[in-house]
This record gives sequence, C-alpha cells and structure tokens, in this order.
Amino acid sequence: MTRIGIIGAGGRMGRAIAAAIGDVDASVAGGIDRPGTDPQALGGVALLADAAALAGASDVMVDFSSPSALQAHLDAAIANGTPIVIGTTGLAAEHHAAIDAAAKSVAVLQAFNTSLGVNLLAHLVREAAARLGSDWDIEIVEMHHRHKVDAPSGTGILLGEAAAAGRQVALADVSVRGRDGITGERPEGAIGFAVLRGGSVAGDHEVIFAGEGERIELGHRAESRAIFARGAVKAALWLAGKPAGRYSMNDVLGL
Amino acid sequence: MTRIGIIGAGGRMGRAIAAAIGDVDASVAGGIDRPGTDPQALGGVALLADAAALAGASDVMVDFSSPSALQAHLDAAIANGTPIVIGTTGLAAEHHAAIDAAAKSVAVLQAFNTSLGVNLLAHLVREAAARLGSDWDIEIVEMHHRHKVDAPSGTGILLGEAAAAGRQVALADVSVRGRDGITGERPEGAIGFAVLRGGSVAGDHEVIFAGEGERIELGHRAESRAIFARGAVKAALWLAGKPAGRYSMNDVLGL
Amino acid sequence: MTRIGIIGAGGRMGRAIAAAIGDVDASVAGGIDRPGTDPQALGGVALLADAAALAGASDVMVDFSSPSALQAHLDAAIANGTPIVIGTTGLAAEHHAAIDAAAKSVAVLQAFNTSLGVNLLAHLVREAAARLGSDWDIEIVEMHHRHKVDAPSGTGILLGEAAAAGRQVALADVSVRGRDGITGERPEGAIGFAVLRGGSVAGDHEVIFAGEGERIELGHRAESRAIFARGAVKAALWLAGKPAGRYSMNDVLGL
Amino acid sequence: MTRIGIIGAGGRMGRAIAAAIGDVDASVAGGIDRPGTDPQALGGVALLADAAALAGASDVMVDFSSPSALQAHLDAAIANGTPIVIGTTGLAAEHHAAIDAAAKSVAVLQAFNTSLGVNLLAHLVREAAARLGSDWDIEIVEMHHRHKVDAPSGTGILLGEAAAAGRQVALADVSVRGRDGITGERPEGAIGFAVLRGGSVAGDHEVIFAGEGERIELGHRAESRAIFARGAVKAALWLAGKPAGRYSMNDVLGL
Repeated sequence: MTRIGIIGAGGRMGRAIAAAIGDVDASVAGGIDRPGTDPQALGGVALLADAAALAGASDVMVDFSSPSALQAHLDAAIANGTPIVIGTTGLAAEHHAAIDAAAKSVAVLQAFNTSLGVNLLAHLVREAAARLGSDWDIEIVEMHHRHKVDAPSGTGILLGEAAAAGRQVALADVSVRGRDGITGERPEGAIGFAVLRGGSVAGDHEVIFAGEGERIELGHRAESRAIFARGAVKAALWLAGKPAGRYSMNDVLGL
Repeated sequence: MTRIGIIGAGGRMGRAIAAAIGDVDASVAGGIDRPGTDPQALGGVALLADAAALAGASDVMVDFSSPSALQAHLDAAIANGTPIVIGTTGLAAEHHAAIDAAAKSVAVLQAFNTSLGVNLLAHLVREAAARLGSDWDIEIVEMHHRHKVDAPSGTGILLGEAAAAGRQVALADVSVRGRDGITGERPEGAIGFAVLRGGSVAGDHEVIFAGEGERIELGHRAESRAIFARGAVKAALWLAGKPAGRYSMNDVLGL
Repeated sequence: MTRIGIIGAGGRMGRAIAAAIGDVDASVAGGIDRPGTDPQALGGVALLADAAALAGASDVMVDFSSPSALQAHLDAAIANGTPIVIGTTGLAAEHHAAIDAAAKSVAVLQAFNTSLGVNLLAHLVREAAARLGSDWDIEIVEMHHRHKVDAPSGTGILLGEAAAAGRQVALADVSVRGRDGITGERPEGAIGFAVLRGGSVAGDHEVIFAGEGERIELGHRAESRAIFARGAVKAALWLAGKPAGRYSMNDVLGL
Repeated sequence: MTRIGIIGAGGRMGRAIAAAIGDVDASVAGGIDRPGTDPQALGGVALLADAAALAGASDVMVDFSSPSALQAHLDAAIANGTPIVIGTTGLAAEHHAAIDAAAKSVAVLQAFNTSLGVNLLAHLVREAAARLGSDWDIEIVEMHHRHKVDAPSGTGILLGEAAAAGRQVALADVSVRGRDGITGERPEGAIGFAVLRGGSVAGDHEVIFAGEGERIELGHRAESRAIFARGAVKAALWLAGKPAGRYSMNDVLGL
C-alpha cells in the first residue's frame, strides 16, 4: 500500500487529498504545514516535524502549499529519494528552475491542475490554436473562489501555454493581462487573460477563439475540489517508484 | 469567374449567399425558388425558370431550400454535369441515399454547416469523445431563431455524429431527443439533444461532456448568417470543376 | 431545539439534510424511507416505523421522497398536527390539490427549490417577463445529474410559472416541451423548455429572453446539493409552530 | 419629420445610425467626423463643416465619437438649442461634469448603452444587489470586438453602477479592475471587472453574484450594433423638442 505524505495538510486541498486517499489503495503517511499550525486543522492526519521527516515516512509526497516553501520541500524529496507531486500555484520562473534541478535527482511531477478534464481541454486548445489563423483572437477567462490569492490561475496559464504552443509562439511574448483604462485596439496575436473571483467556485475556465462573425468556446467547470484531490492522488500513485525526471499529468493520463 | 446558381434564392440564406458572392471573384448565375415566388424577393438576382435552366447557366449551384425538392435539384445537376453544394437541413436517410446516388455522376458537397468554426468544433468533439470513457455523459444543446422549423438543427446532428464517431457507436443507437415527463435515469452511453428557439439567434451550439465532478463544454456561436453564406460560397468555388463524388466541408477546409 | 423528521432519509437529499441539521440549532428526530430500505443507508439517522411514528416524534418534517407517497405523508402530518416541508419534485395537479387540502389543517410549505438564489431569480424572471413584450421569446434550459428521473425539473417549472405570471398567462397554455422533429416556426408567446442530463450536476437553470438582435439571460448554478439542504432546514425551522396554511420559500426568505 | 444629425458619421456606429434612421419616420440632417475624414466614409451622408453647422441643420444630434471632442459638441448644441444624445464611451468625471453643465441649457441624454435589454438588465442587477447580502460577491465580465479601445466598456460600468446603487455604496469605493499577479484574497464588498476583447463581438455582458455554493448570473448579448443604433434613434426621436435637462434611457424606455 503506497504511503502518501501531504504537504500543506491543514489547507483546503490538503484535507481533500487526505479524504481522497481513503477511497483508493493507499495510506496517509502524515502531513506537515506552516510552523504554528494547529494539529486539529489536519483533521486526523498526523502532524510530522518537518519535510525531511515526512519524506522519510512516505513513498511519495503531494505538495499543495506555497511557492516560498517549495525549495525546502524539493530538498527533502532529493535527500530521501522520495518522489513528489507539486500542485502549488503561483510559481515563477525561479520555481520552475528549482523543479528542473530537482528532477535530475528524483521524480517530480508538477501540475497546475490534476483533473482529467482540464488536461484534455489543454490538448483541444492546442489543436484549435494550431488550426486557426491569427485572425482568430484567443482570450482566456477563469473564475475561482474569493480566497484565491493569485491571478490568473495556474490552470489559466496552463491553457494559455497550450494555446501559445499551438501557435508556435512563447506565451510571455503575447500575453495580455489585467486590461483596464485606455488600452488601444487589441494587438494581433495577443492571448488575453481575464480573472473573476467570488463565492466558493472550485474553478471554471474558458478559452475563447473569436473570429470574424463566429466564436469557438472551449471550457471546463470543476464542481468541487474533490476532482483535483482525486487527480493528485492518482498522480502520486503513478509517480511512486518512478526514476528521476520531470513528469506531467499528460504522462499519468496518457494524453 | 465562376458562375454560381442559387437555389432558394428568395430565402434568408439565398439572399445572404448573393451578398457573399459580391465579395469574391465570382458572379451570380441566377436563382430559383418555389413556384409563385415574387421575383422581388430575390433582391436583384435573376429568377430563372427551373432547376434545369439554372444548372445550364451555372458552373456550380448552391442549394439552401427544402428536402422535398432535393431530388429535382440533384437530377438537374446530373443532367447538366453541374456540381452542387447542399446546405439544406432536415435531411432524412432517403435524402442522403439520393445524394450518394447523385455523387456517382456529379460532384456533390453536402454540409450541415459551412463555417470553419463549426467544422473545427466537430473535430474537437470527436477527439474528446474518443478519449473520454462512457462515464462522461454527452449532451448537445443548440439555439436558433424563432423561424427555424426543424429540431435539432442539422449542425446539432453533425456534432452528435462527431461524438458518436469518437465513441465508435452509431448515433441512431444512442440518441435521446425531446426529454419530457418521467424519463427515468439517463441511459449510460446516451447522446442527448436539447433545443432552444427564439429571437434572431443565427446559431449557437454547445457539446457538454459531463463527468463525475467536472464538465468539459465545447461550443460555437455564429453572430450572423453571413458566416454560413461566406462558407457556402467558399465551398462552391472549391467544388466547381471537381470530378463526381461526395465531398464535405472537411475537404474544403483541409481538416 | 427543534426536532426535524426526515422523509426519504436514505436518499441523496435526505442525507444532505441530516448533515445540514448538524450545522444549526436543531436535532434529527429520525427518518423513514421506502419499505425494505437498509437502515445503514440512513447514515446514522434512526429509521422509524412509518410516517405516523415520524410525525409523532417531530416538531416539523421535511419530505424529499416521491409523489406517490405524498398523500400518506400529508395524512400523518394532519393526524399529528406536525408541519411539513415538501421538496419532492414531479408533482402533478392532483398532488397540488392534496397539498391545498392538507394546508387547511396543518402548516405545509411546498418548494420546488429551497435556495435563496433560485427564489430570487424567479422574482427577477417575473419582473423581466412583465416588462418585455411578447416579441421577446422566453426559453428555459436546465441541467441536472444523470440520476434525475423527471423532466423538466421542478425548479425549471417554477421559473416557467414566474415568467408566465409576469406575462399574465397560464403556463399550461403556452408551455412547449420536448421539441423534436419538424416543429414548425416557434409560436408567439410560447415558453419553451429544454432539458439536459449528465454527470453529477447539482442543478443549473437559465431563462433566456430572446428579442430581435439581443438576448437577456438570467441563470442560477448550484454547486452542490448542500445549498438545497441548508435551505430546506431553514424552511423547516421557520415552519415549526406556524398555523395551518400553505406557505412558500418567499415567505421564509422575505421575497 | 425629425432631422437627426450624426456626429462621428464615418464610424461604425455612425453608419449604423444612418441605416437605422431609414427605418423610422426621420431624416438624416448630415454628419460630421474628425478633420480629414474622407467624405466617402460617410456612406452617402452629407459631410458638414463642423458641429455648429450640424447643430443648425438638425432637430436633434446623436454623438458616438470620442471624449476629447465632447465639449465642442456640447457647445454647439447649447449655441443652437439643439438636443443631443451622447453615446460616446470612455467618459471621465470631467466629461460628466460638462454634460451636467450643458444640461442646464439644452436637453442632453447620455447613455452608455441604448438597448432595451441592457437597460432592463441594469434594473434587475440593482434589485438583485439590493436583496443579496455582501456575502454574495459581485463580478462583471464583458466582451467586445478587437477594435474597442477602452476597458471596461461603458455598459460594464453602467452595470457596476447599478450594482453599487443596489448596495447603497459608491462604485469608485469598491471597484476592483484589472486583477493580475498576487492580489490577495478578494476584499469583501468589492465589485470586480474583467474584460475580454476579440473578433467582431458586438457586446456581451454578464453580472455574476457568487454566494456560498450557488451563483446567480444575469447577462445580455447583443448580436449586432444595429440594436444600439435603433435605440439611439429611438432616443433621438424622444429627445427632440424636450426642455433642457439631463435624461437617460430609462426616461425613453419608461423603466
């Protein structure tokens, strides 16, 4: 039975992951969270001392915490040879570089979104972007609950990357975010992002291809965090025992 | 300059096609419509005597009329060796058989929808259906203007066929239409259709893949009939001069 | 502390109501379900002998079961003077007559939908329908999970009634359901219904007012059954101790 | 027959207004546009020398041009006593002050959006905002064609003002625009705006009220600019002959 360690075990995703582990052939190895976290917040999951202790007790770890703690978690994974699934959002270039470096020593799977639906959507977006000319404008709109602190969502960016890949451009070169005020006409080839926050929305995303007189709209709705937790556990089971390397949900889902 | 003959020239699509021909390197060869049609209704297009006269004057014909007149139009196309684009909706199995028979003698392109967007969407739907298991329920909803007389739309059926093809089943075996009353639980593997009518909507379609806890929604919105007219003219220009055979928009669009 | 009895305690809504009672100042008086129901299915709620026993043990009952059992539940409510909230869907005219008759003896609150959002939406739909002329076509589309057995949903009908009331017509006179095949043009003044089923959708509803060149779309999305359970418990607490009469969610919500 | 003068006659809206005047009992008095505008761009409308000349020749003027020219147009309206409909978007506080000042001398109707649908929607939004507590988050998302230069749209702001009025707060105090990066959690009571641009979209708007577990979505779709042009002409006919004062579409539509 695969032992799964939960980083960020006191958070919303951490608790959902603990619940999802109960539905499959795996066990919870324990959890960690920010210093000072109330052990009660972990809902029955044993609070371990630190990432090193968790890595030692786990066959694989799942990290839904914060970018600032990522390096310490990767270090623990490397030191113990424990594969790690990274679901943390708000990653910057430096974090991706850290993941690449860690992946030389241990199996690391980084996913902005662990659901089958979103990852399939990203494939469809890439294909549509490849077939439609640059006279079809690409816009991405996403909505999440009021507690989300970063914008656009990691999944939104994942979809933007898919669209950019289909067009064979770099997202950073064409991304337009936070439109406000006198913006001027839309630049040709831009990929725009719009962000909505409110209520308890688990995560809605839509990619719009807007041509002359017609639109294609490709979207995904998550009804609850449970799908991400189930997907993260599926990824963890898949990753346990894998050799060093950087993996993605596409590897898990066979996309 | 390709001469295009318009069948159903007094209808909404007929007039839109005449307008679209003005934007490309082609000319209107004339039009026909139901007996008794007021020549004024054709908006300046010459009203010819019948389908035979139109076929004789045209390099290619475009037919957006009614299923009941289809055989006569195909006969005129065969007799004159004039390729024909069929955009008429509400076709039954017998009409498709008639098209297949005609395609042995002349080039025939039958399209439920002549827009790039819809035909690309059908490809994405087929791919999604192929990759998602039968635990993802497929539903199709479409909305058109209040004057539309058939349901579901030809495009809705086109999308249903794409979904069925992705699942390697026959649409007729799994199609569920017109839900009302005590229906019982949804049959596994069904492809459902829902139909909205109202206002001046040119045509909205959405295919929903509903799984446990998440949904993928793939849709298309037409802002006006102009996109269908432009696509039909594009198809006509492509078809003129082609050898006998049955063609589709995928051939025109390179999908 | 108000004692709430749950009819249909082994069903999805029944279990959600038991959970919702735990969040407020109330207790579960017990539950009943169809003969032969496994007591385990009630998730810890005590299975009582029948509706009479439940009515005797409760300050108020909540019924999310089936129309065929409604009369028996109303009889038990009358015999014990126990107010009852009816959330069962699929009610026909005879069931509404039975509710009216029972309401002469005991407090009965019948609600197609117990959420604040849906009931407010119904008010907005009524107002919009009252202000827009009959050249704005009204369509209602709803989606629910694959296990739902009736169509359209009770909430869909609630919204249709609101639209009809705004127009000062009877819904039965203008309702168009289950469009399929050669329907002819849309009748002026019709209120159309379209039904989608799939996945685990808790309940989405949209009312579309389609005019010439523009549309108003008024919709509601429920993320989970929990909102209906919370609303039903809120209604039960409100109804306990009320005199005989027929009540609605508008009374509870002050709409 | 009311003579209507068109300011910005060479623009998209200007030409749509000229077309709409042809459908009602009114005539085009002439048009003006930026210095150097090609007279051909006006599509047959006579190009007059300046705003003063246009005001002299018109019973009422309609202005869909740019904020920078607004003062000159108001001055011409005042000097000639010619009522003026202002449909220009991107207005700042100083422009509204100028309109208020002009309205002391002449009839001025300023409208962010001249369609019946949008103005009714604004009423529904105000009512919903008044009835829902601040635990329901309000978000506004809009999409327009790729040529639009300001964000959010005037109509988006109109809807935000309606929501703010319903809550009895000032929009400026709670408005959140252009979310991007590490934003932190959503502030309670905020009204958020998200902006999409692309293709030929005439104008889509949606106001989302997101509560715990449920959402109400109130939206409007314009299929073409023709509805705004028809509404602007309707407003002009209504305004011609009215005494000095500032008016709105609510006055025209009786909302």
